[in-house]
Amino acid sequence: MNYAGIYHRPESEFAFLYTKDLMRIRLQTARDEIEKVELISGDFYLFAEEKWYQKPQTMEKAYMTDTHDYWEIEVTAPHHRLAYAFLITDFSGTKIFYTDQGIFDFDEQRITRDNLYFRMPYFHEIDRFKVPSWVAKTVWYQIFPERFCNGDPSNDPENTMAWGSEKPTRESFYGGDLQGVINQLDYLEDLGINGLYLCPIFTAPSNHKYDTVDYYEIDPHFGDKQLFRELVEKAHERGIRIMLDAVFNHLGASSHQWQDVILHGKESAYADWFHVESFPPQYTAVPNSENAKNLTYDAFNFNPNMPKLNTANPEVQKYLLEIATYWIREFDIDGWRLDVANEVDHHFWKEFHQAVLKQKPDLYILGEIWHTSQNWLQGDEFHAVMNYAFTDAIKAFFVEQSISLSQMIFGMNRQQLLYRDQTNEVTFNLLDSHDTPRMLTLCQGNKDLMKAILTFMFIQKGTPCIYYGTEVGMEGEADPDCRRCMLWGEEQDQELHAFMKQLIALRKQFSEVFSYGSTTWHYDDDKKIVSLTRKYKEKTLIALFNEGKMVETVANGRRLFGQNYHERSGYQLAKHGFLIEEC
Amino acid sequence: MNYAGIYHRPESEFAFLYTKDLMRIRLQTARDEIEKVELISGDFYLFAEEKWYQKPQTMEKAYMTDTHDYWEIEVTAPHHRLAYAFLITDFSGTKIFYTDQGIFDFDEQRITRDNLYFRMPYFHEIDRFKVPSWVAKTVWYQIFPERFCNGDPSNDPENTMAWGSEKPTRESFYGGDLQGVINQLDYLEDLGINGLYLCPIFTAPSNHKYDTVDYYEIDPHFGDKQLFRELVEKAHERGIRIMLDAVFNHLGASSHQWQDVILHGKESAYADWFHVESFPPQYTAVPNSENAKNLTYDAFNFNPNMPKLNTANPEVQKYLLEIATYWIREFDIDGWRLDVANEVDHHFWKEFHQAVLKQKPDLYILGEIWHTSQNWLQGDEFHAVMNYAFTDAIKAFFVEQSISLSQMIFGMNRQQLLYRDQTNEVTFNLLDSHDTPRMLTLCQGNKDLMKAILTFMFIQKGTPCIYYGTEVGMEGEADPDCRRCMLWGEEQDQELHAFMKQLIALRKQFSEVFSYGSTTWHYDDDKKIVSLTRKYKEKTLIALFNEGKMVETVANGRRLFGQNYHERSGYQLAKHGFLIEEC
Repeated sequence: MNYAGIYHRPESEFAFLYTKDLMRIRLQTARDEIEKVELISGDFYLFAEEKWYQKPQTMEKAYMTDTHDYWEIEVTAPHHRLAYAFLITDFSGTKIFYTDQGIFDFDEQRITRDNLYFRMPYFHEIDRFKVPSWVAKTVWYQIFPERFCNGDPSNDPENTMAWGSEKPTRESFYGGDLQGVINQLDYLEDLGINGLYLCPIFTAPSNHKYDTVDYYEIDPHFGDKQLFRELVEKAHERGIRIMLDAVFNHLGASSHQWQDVILHGKESAYADWFHVESFPPQYTAVPNSENAKNLTYDAFNFNPNMPKLNTANPEVQKYLLEIATYWIREFDIDGWRLDVANEVDHHFWKEFHQAVLKQKPDLYILGEIWHTSQNWLQGDEFHAVMNYAFTDAIKAFFVEQSISLSQMIFGMNRQQLLYRDQTNEVTFNLLDSHDTPRMLTLCQGNKDLMKAILTFMFIQKGTPCIYYGTEVGMEGEADPDCRRCMLWGEEQDQELHAFMKQLIALRKQFSEVFSYGSTTWHYDDDKKIVSLTRKYKEKTLIALFNEGKMVETVANGRRLFGQNYHERSGYQLAKHGFLIEEC
Repeated sequence: MNYAGIYHRPESEFAFLYTKDLMRIRLQTARDEIEKVELISGDFYLFAEEKWYQKPQTMEKAYMTDTHDYWEIEVTAPHHRLAYAFLITDFSGTKIFYTDQGIFDFDEQRITRDNLYFRMPYFHEIDRFKVPSWVAKTVWYQIFPERFCNGDPSNDPENTMAWGSEKPTRESFYGGDLQGVINQLDYLEDLGINGLYLCPIFTAPSNHKYDTVDYYEIDPHFGDKQLFRELVEKAHERGIRIMLDAVFNHLGASSHQWQDVILHGKESAYADWFHVESFPPQYTAVPNSENAKNLTYDAFNFNPNMPKLNTANPEVQKYLLEIATYWIREFDIDGWRLDVANEVDHHFWKEFHQAVLKQKPDLYILGEIWHTSQNWLQGDEFHAVMNYAFTDAIKAFFVEQSISLSQMIFGMNRQQLLYRDQTNEVTFNLLDSHDTPRMLTLCQGNKDLMKAILTFMFIQKGTPCIYYGTEVGMEGEADPDCRRCMLWGEEQDQELHAFMKQLIALRKQFSEVFSYGSTTWHYDDDKKIVSLTRKYKEKTLIALFNEGKMVETVANGRRLFGQNYHERSGYQLAKHGFLIEEC
């Protein structure tokens, strides 16, 4: 047996409370090595009396990756305590006992030693990972406010260019604003989305506003607080939630705090608000260098205009937490998306978590993290992260064709296995954003392909997000080209728009199945055809995607949605074709 | 290559800040599979510019277990950020690239994809696991106060028995008290210990005081606050630290809070202080059952006299945190040992951590946990746990002879690999306590064997503790027999006492080497002979232990300490013999 592949970690994504009384336990073993895994479990203090070590329960093989199998079981405990260990049998019949003190050959005596068992010492509801229930039912729409709609030309910045003219540069302005968003709420409601994620809207000199100067004011080119209040209220009337973007890793260089440090150096009241190595803070441009490394202070991505905040300073903490709660208290926002969240300290995020949830218990906390995020997702920091790592696998198969179908599924599983199910159910799935090339561009204009990918992403666990304009055929290379002006009127691709409306409606209709349901995969790497069965309570949906040649398939149930198929004693599915049916 | 054995977990015991600027990175691979592991690392934002992915650094094979090898490296980062991944080469020359998105065949192109790298996004000192520096220099002495010394017969409970008469029962009293401890401070100072861990001393009806009735009073049979203050002051004058036992998982049933619940049921102001399923709280004894399961409330180990506290209730949190800080503020204690710490919620321990360290930044927080304790040892709860799981392996080899030498070492390594080095350096190593049989009894009276084990434990990473009376030959089976009256005067084994004085002195003299030094093992499973080399900065100590037949060995350096050896052109080491030399 391949002992080296066996892994379990108590009180982690391998062993967590799913509900108050239900605990989910996972075990990792080497791929295709193990025939059967059983859980031996019971109350630690009733070990001798109940002899529960004689009553193993079979675990289910729930996930597979390129290297491992993962086994799962859901258990409860009448006295809110659980001791447990694993009996593992390989295909040759060899049986071992995997415990909190390692691996032993199975024998009747060994299992009677109570000190060998893993422990969930008590089911503490206060420690359980909890997420807001509305998120799993939400379809998000991300807006880059400077480029969505210009509703009030009177607040346009100097040098505002004609809407949609030329390709955007890092410096260009087009006049998009909050009045524009308000004006298009009917459009958004009609599209069907019910969550709006707005890139930063606080006062900042740039077009992207990630260089905040005043967290307490709406950027004057976007509007004012009254207008923002109106936006939130009108969105809420339509059942649309509002998530704002909080840039707490760094400040804009023109903020009064940083300017005070520039002016007074170490005598500044804000000297300890940043990470300044030597005063006065300065930088020198490095010739032929993309990054100006000669900074005497820490900055985001060596950008001298984005000095990093010292979030270990209690004054800074207080300042930022007051901002975080202010916009909830005064404007009733529903979520915070946290920019560069990985570079801010955990200590601060734990304070943040407590402060904002005290203000609004069902606020959604979403971190911008592109890599493994376990340490931010233990239940006391974020609810979820921007799930680029998950959709990377989807793009690598569908778009780049750099991995096989099975590798895609393994990659997706690998990401989900990093987290508790609660996180996976509300994780923020997105295929593109203001930080990446747009999907249609990645698909080289192939709308069928893009529709297949979007549909595939929408039916996974998690809460899907579309980047503004995806629904009407917008294109764009990497930043800044992905931040073009929204297409309006006749420029919009109406066929794509209609498709997206249907997809959004489907997602909302079956959001429970997609967010909470189990997933079963069937696939053929050579034929590039994959089906997934999503099941929740009484409901079962089957989805079939074909990225290969024309295939014949049999109808299983009631057709809900599809593309590129022909009905003929069953179905014929062309390339990029897909079908979703209810069974 | 056995891919299944490869494991790394960012921001965990596999990747942690050791000092402000130094990060330690570990990688797990299958045992004896891998020839070489290299780390590729650098600043994420200088990826393209510095092309640091072309400059791998070799990692050291630092630990081995029965199933895995563990590789380690210490790195720094000029800009306080690190992206990293692993190049792994097996003995056949096959090379793979292990990343944040899984395992890939090594190729020049793949390593240029920056999104594949693991991340330590920023070196945050506030998130770093920090421990009090005095702990690693401490040799602890655990006292069960009712049984150490009766210094004031006037405060003896009724039915106090003559000192040392009969075997103790669960109910017996012998009159030990704080005056007794004060009277013996000269004895303790002479022995050389510099940390006293006192089992509970607050008012409680039992002899063990784990059923607290009043956390604000010293039990009247032990003394009063004035006397306790005298004890702390006199201990501190001698350089001896004081750690108290906090029983925060449950209250004693005769506490006024629980009695109020009994009296007023759900109308009691304390109704939510406990976990009562239905009012009035009650229990019925179950015939022929060790555990009375018919409780309508949660209690420690089904003990109706120990109702479990609801530490999720903010009133209870406030109450306990005030107690925790009161004894620090008013009496200047140096540590809290937390009883049944695993069954109390993490949320509470995080509050506790902040509250007590605010009161005294170098307070030692020690949890009673017998199993894997990763979730309590992330830097924001405890500094260490009672390291039974580590010494279990030592006892299994030396005493039970149920495992081989190599299995012992693998077991010890396995435990250390669960934690950051900071924890291992201050972890609480103990061979016996008020909850286990005594060492000499386990050794069936074989003092040579016990001395070898004690010495072996004393020279490991961690802070060693001896249970009162071990140094004078006390024996005892499991609780309550392990809580006999301390031997005084002629009953004491003077030879053993002299040995322990020497061992304690050696440990203190070389505490840096033992706590912070590296460990290199050489062993022979058949001959049952093991040497370990402990090295720190310029100092190197070698220790040799023989649990087999007489062996010849060569002297390497200056002899510091030993037992059962003969010097003759080198040394002859008899069974249970050992030698410690400085090189």
